[in-house]
Order: sequence, then C-alpha cells, then structure tokens
Amino acid sequence: MADAKPDISFIGLGAMGFGMATNLVKQGYKVTGFDVWQPTLERFQAAGGGTATTPAEAVKDKVYCVCMVATAQQAQAVLIEGDSPAVPALPRGAILLLCSTVPCAYVQGLDKQLVELGRGDIRLIDAPVSGGAGRAADGTLSIMAGGSDDAIEKGRFLLQEMSDPKKLYIVKGGVGAGSNMKMCHQVLAANQILAASEGLGFASHLGLELEPASQAILKSDAWAWMFENRLPRMLDPEFKPVASALSIIVKDTSIITSEARRAGFPTPMTSTAEQVYFSGLGRGYGPDDDSSLIRLYTEGKGKIGPVKGLAESDESKLALVVGLFKGIYLCSAAEAIAFAHKCNLDLDQVFDLCINAAGGSTMLQTVGLDMAKLCRGEQLSTRSGEGFKEVARQLQAAVEEAQRLKVPVYLGSQALTLTRLARKLASQATGDISSAFVTKVWGI
Amino acid sequence: MADAKPDISFIGLGAMGFGMATNLVKQGYKVTGFDVWQPTLERFQAAGGGTATTPAEAVKDKVYCVCMVATAQQAQAVLIEGDSPAVPALPRGAILLLCSTVPCAYVQGLDKQLVELGRGDIRLIDAPVSGGAGRAADGTLSIMAGGSDDAIEKGRFLLQEMSDPKKLYIVKGGVGAGSNMKMCHQVLAANQILAASEGLGFASHLGLELEPASQAILKSDAWAWMFENRLPRMLDPEFKPVASALSIIVKDTSIITSEARRAGFPTPMTSTAEQVYFSGLGRGYGPDDDSSLIRLYTEGKGKIGPVKGLAESDESKLALVVGLFKGIYLCSAAEAIAFAHKCNLDLDQVFDLCINAAGGSTMLQTVGLDMAKLCRGEQLSTRSGEGFKEVARQLQAAVEEAQRLKVPVYLGSQALTLTRLARKLASQATGDISSAFVTKVWGI
Repeated sequence: MADAKPDISFIGLGAMGFGMATNLVKQGYKVTGFDVWQPTLERFQAAGGGTATTPAEAVKDKVYCVCMVATAQQAQAVLIEGDSPAVPALPRGAILLLCSTVPCAYVQGLDKQLVELGRGDIRLIDAPVSGGAGRAADGTLSIMAGGSDDAIEKGRFLLQEMSDPKKLYIVKGGVGAGSNMKMCHQVLAANQILAASEGLGFASHLGLELEPASQAILKSDAWAWMFENRLPRMLDPEFKPVASALSIIVKDTSIITSEARRAGFPTPMTSTAEQVYFSGLGRGYGPDDDSSLIRLYTEGKGKIGPVKGLAESDESKLALVVGLFKGIYLCSAAEAIAFAHKCNLDLDQVFDLCINAAGGSTMLQTVGLDMAKLCRGEQLSTRSGEGFKEVARQLQAAVEEAQRLKVPVYLGSQALTLTRLARKLASQATGDISSAFVTKVWGI
Repeated sequence: MADAKPDISFIGLGAMGFGMATNLVKQGYKVTGFDVWQPTLERFQAAGGGTATTPAEAVKDKVYCVCMVATAQQAQAVLIEGDSPAVPALPRGAILLLCSTVPCAYVQGLDKQLVELGRGDIRLIDAPVSGGAGRAADGTLSIMAGGSDDAIEKGRFLLQEMSDPKKLYIVKGGVGAGSNMKMCHQVLAANQILAASEGLGFASHLGLELEPASQAILKSDAWAWMFENRLPRMLDPEFKPVASALSIIVKDTSIITSEARRAGFPTPMTSTAEQVYFSGLGRGYGPDDDSSLIRLYTEGKGKIGPVKGLAESDESKLALVVGLFKGIYLCSAAEAIAFAHKCNLDLDQVFDLCINAAGGSTMLQTVGLDMAKLCRGEQLSTRSGEGFKEVARQLQAAVEEAQRLKVPVYLGSQALTLTRLARKLASQATGDISSAFVTKVWGI
C-alpha cells in the first residue's frame, strides 16, 4: 500500500511494447525504456518515458523489468547474450516479466539459465499477452502468466496494470505454462486470421458485394473476433493501416507447429495455414498487414476461364460463406483445445481465455466446453448447437462450390477432410452427434 | 480372322486422340475423325485419316467408335445432346469406347441413357487411358477397360491396338470400373505432379544445384515416373514444351475429390494438391505445362528475409529432399490404394497398373502390396522397406527445414500430419511397423 510506485524497466518498444510501456507511464510509474531503434526511444521520451542506451543500463536498480521483444532470439540477446545484457545488471531478487510470445521450451530453458548464471534469485514470470496494440496502450490486454507462487505474488500488480481485470489468467504449471496457453490460443489466431481472407475471398468469387455480406457474416453464427478485426483492412484497397504484419503471425504459427512436432501432436489446420503464410511471404507480403492475404484468394478472379457455381441468390451464396467459416472455426477450435489438453492445461481456463480474446468465435462459444469434456473423457449430456452432420453438410456445400469456381479454400478443404476422418472415428455413436466430436481426430 | 480391318470412327482429335487415331491409321484401319477444331481435321487428313463435319456423319455405318474428348460435358454433347450427335447415328450393335477420363457416375449414367434412348443395343466400353501423347501415338498406352463380357470381347482387338500388351487392364465390375481404376491411378498422378514442383522447389531453396540434384533423386528411393517425366520441363526456363497443361490435371483432380466426397471418403493428399492447383489457375498458369508450378514454390527465393537452414552439405540437403518426396509418395500411395479399396477394385490389379503407369514410384513398388493387404484385413508377414518411424523421421526433418527456410511444402506438411494421425491409430502395434500402416488413416 506504499504510495510510491516502483521504477520499472521496459525492454522492447515495438508496436505492443510501446503501448504497454506508455500505459505504465500514464499510470504514474517511472519507466525506463530500451529499444534498438532510436526513433522509438525519442517517441517514448516524448510520451514521458525515460530511456537507456543498453539493456543493462535500463534495468539497473529497477526491481521490475518487462521484456517485450519480438522473438526468443531477441530475448536471449537482450537478456543474456548480447551487448550489455539485462540479466547480470538486474538487482538481486528482481521480477522479470517475459511478455514476448516464445516457445514454452525457450522460457523454461531461460529459467534454468538464470540458475546456471548464478542468478536463481531472479523471479521469472512467463507472461505472454494477447489483444493487439490498442489494448496494449489501454492496459486492457489478455495476459497468461505462469511462474512460481512467489513470483506471481510479487509481479501481480504489474500484470494487473497491463491487463483487463477479467482477462488476467494465472496459469497453473509454473514458468512455461503461460507460453503454452498463449500457443494454444494462437492456434485459433493462426487459423482465423487466414480464414478471414479465405472466407471473404470466396465471397468475392461468388459475386457477393463484400460490404453488406461482411455485415451479415458478423451477425451470423460465423462471427469471429479476427474477422471483425481484420474486416476494415481487408476492405481497404491498400490493406491499410498495417496493424499486424504477416511476419508476426508467421512467427507464432511456427511456434505452434514446431512445438507440436516436438510433442508428436498433429496440427492439420495450423500446418495448412502455415504453408499458405509461407506462400504469402514468397509473394513479398511479409511486412504487409495479414488481412492482405485476401489477395492470395482473389487474384485471377474472372480470368480462370469459364466457371459457374450453383448458388444464384445472395442468400444462398451467403449461406455458403457462413458454412465455410463455421467449418473452419469448428476445426480450429478442436485443434486448439486438443492441443491444450496435450499440454496439460486447464481446459476450462483455456476456453475462458479464448472466448474473451482474439481467438473468440461463436462456434467456439457453442462447442468449446463440449470439446473440453470430450478431451477429459466425460460424456456429453445434451448436444450444443447444430449437429456434426449439419455443420459438415454446410462445409461440404461450400467446398463443392469453391471447386466449381476453382477457388482455393485451403482451410475449408482441410476442415472437410477432418470431418470425414472424425465421422469414421465416431462411428460407434448412433444418430446425429455433436459437432464437438471432430475433436476425436486428434486422438482424443 | 478376316483380313479386312473394320472401319472406325474417332471423335475428339486432341493431344491424346490425334495420336491414338493416327496410330490406328498406321495399323491399317480406315479411320474417320471428327473434332470441333478445323486445323486438327486438316492435320488428320494429312496423316491419312478421313474426316467428318459432325459426330453423326463420322459414326455412320461404322460399328466401332472411339470417343476421346476432354470432359464428360463434351462427351455428353458429341454423343447425345449436341448438334448431330453420334449415338442416334451409330449402327445397331455398335461398340462404343469412351476413352475420356470421366467420373464413374457419368459413364454409368451414359449406359442407362443408351437404354432410355432405345439404344440398349450399343455396347459401351468404359476405357480411360494413361500414358501421355507419345504413348498414344505409339499405341502403347495403359488402358483400363470395364464393360459387359460381350462388349469387351468384341472391342478387345481395338483396345489391344491402342495399348501396350502388358498394360491392358480388363477391370471387373462392368461399365464404370475402368473409370474408377483410372481415378484411383490419378490420385497418384495428382499428387506426384505437384510433388515434382514442391520437391524441386524445396531443393532450390536449399541452395542445391538442380541438375545434379535431380539426377541423384532419380537414382534414389525417391524415384517417381512423374518426377522423371516433368524434370526436363521444370528445368527449362520457360517450362516448355507444354506436354500436359495444368488445366488437365485440375480436371482429373476434381473428379477424384468430388467422387470421394460423394462416397464420404477423405482424400487429404489430393484435396491439398487441388487447392494448390487452384492457386496456380488464379496466377494464370492454366494453359501452361503443369511442371511450371515450381514457380509457386520458388518465387520470392532470397527475398523472404533472413532465413537459415540447418543442412550444410549437399549430401544432407539432398537427403532432406529425398525424405520429402518419399513421405509424399508414401501417403499418395496409401490414399490411392485405400480409395481403390473403397471402390471395390481388385487391389493387386490396381497395384500392377499403377507401378507400370504414370503413377509409378519406388515407394509404391516397395509398400503398395502391403497396403493392399492391410486394406483386405490381412496380416503383414515381414516388413517391406524402411519402417514407419524412419520414413516419418526423414519427412519431419524435411518439413522442419522447409519451415526454417519459410518455404511452403503443402504436400509434405500434409503427409507429416497423416503419419502423426496414423501413429495414434497404429498404437496397438509394438516396435517399429511398416510404413504401409499410414493407410490406417483412411479408416482401413
């Protein structure tokens, strides 16, 4: 209850870090920032922050340090291996929040390195965030924090300053659990970012007017946070402003698929999305907003040759787009929750995080808890939402129409394959079953 | 044993049909050709053929008719629904060979239409071919023929004139069985055509010199007919000459995936290939040789940003490419054989056809018969080739390196997912198992 707020060092003032650090300044903290890019430091000074020329200088005498660089490689450099790194300069008993999205294996390794370097006194909190630059600046991020009880207790006020009170998740399992939680959330993000482009690209080939069609999609069962968020930029002729570059989701996607491979866990949806992202990088779209991937779906429109779909009315076309989205969201939800189960996370907590963060979708809301039950081996009492057959039927109709129009639907096609595989695995069940049963494909 | 060879009508003188018809001329038949494209008719006259201005005129008084148009829609037009169609003009008891690649459902429907039109006397043979324009002209195609015993008996000499003696397959199951056989063969073609581009594109990103690397691949366990066939054109800066247009394999691929959907059968590999083909169409590559799809994999090379793989020696890079190919060929073989099983085809005959046709690969040769045994519920006595773990390990190493280099490997990534899913399904088996076990994913 001391009046004086502690000094804080902040390493990494990129799109997210700048907002987070500036928010702390607004909350009355004295914040000393470090970044490799000089203009950012000048902007931070203008916003009331202090600056340092090395990580070591930034953290000197500050008990609290937030690190928000872009990658594990960058974290390793600023904390330990680069010029004048932070760790040796941190005061004894310091609280170090690593907010970057990194593999669980990295942050657990970092915890061990601290001990090996004789700095086991530093209390590491593994605290990746979600919510975008706007919420970073407002201090209303979602944060998934793992660490020792002692570390969490000491760092909680800082986590609270940066997060929405309802969106601060203390994840059981210590250092690494926060990163696993973020990774499982990013399964939804990785698929739903691409789905926005795939679905709206499909709508475009169907001949729908994109503005009214998009509004109808937002009001349908195919609502998803990512679609709503990316929509204005997808509709902008230049896909501006660049709010989240393709290269960012590529990095998160790679964490998912490489950690999954390490665990022998299949990620059919995310792996598919990753290949399309790589194609986007090959086209030079890496620095562009990820919403611009709609270009991969709309190019050649009208030039493919004589193609003709079956859907004629706007209503039937819209139903196809909605069916495509729902099928993709169903399967990305199943992949996220099955992977979270594999990572020994509390699935109810995962669900609560995801529906309130960028991974949220109406489909997840409807069937996510049933998926969690199936993962835990519990019986489903009543069916939530449409049955498996109905969702698969709508998805199939969309994939068939896309085939007629010769439009790629990478995620939709993969989702349809998964419903086919699931149908075989759930064949002991009689009658119509919950669409949550698609989770069976992941060996649940 | 009559000396005089019967007159033959030939409808459809495209790349394949022209060679097939000209070969019959060379064998001493009087052949009357029809095509909608006038210059082709002039060429056919120059090659010693007769010509007609309508299908009806072509078939008049000829007991034997070969139809080799590009699609089911075209077949329907020239045979029944177009101007002066063939069927009403065919003499009673005519033998009609439909050599086009069409869905089983179409040719079976055609058989019914003949009866409905009062032309049940016409003996239809469902006789799709494989082998390319060169073998068409040499009369050494692979032919998969289904029909009544009577029809096959009467048409056999004609099938023999057009095929290699070892590559004429009389498929049990009547009209439609030939098309199903071709369709299952095309599962291999659809995947291995794209694999050629994906594998060589990957080799290019690895920094291998493509000429010597390709020669090494041809001598390795990653040999495939398609790779050998497409290689010269992939290495040609303009991907010339156009021997098989992208639009052709797109058509065959659509038959596979739409018939599979109708049967509720998953085709994870072919469906993935299809999406990439659609992206190729969107880029305007439809009329180009399918080998030119390597462009989808090599573009942006060197411009993706700082990427670095782990493999350093040419030997280790080549091993990664070989591992990628083998994983893809394994899974496309499993999909083809499992689908053939679903279609009630004789799997030993399917195997024999495929290894001797454009779908052939060393991987299929090694594990194809084991896959057939698994489909029939038989036990495998000894393991053929490398074990499942080893093939999956090599594939994973390749997909991981592609991820480091940020290169898409659509088929390789999908194949890796399938080995993951299969591993779970084959978990009751102890120790190392045959790589043929990947077939389990298809519900075998």
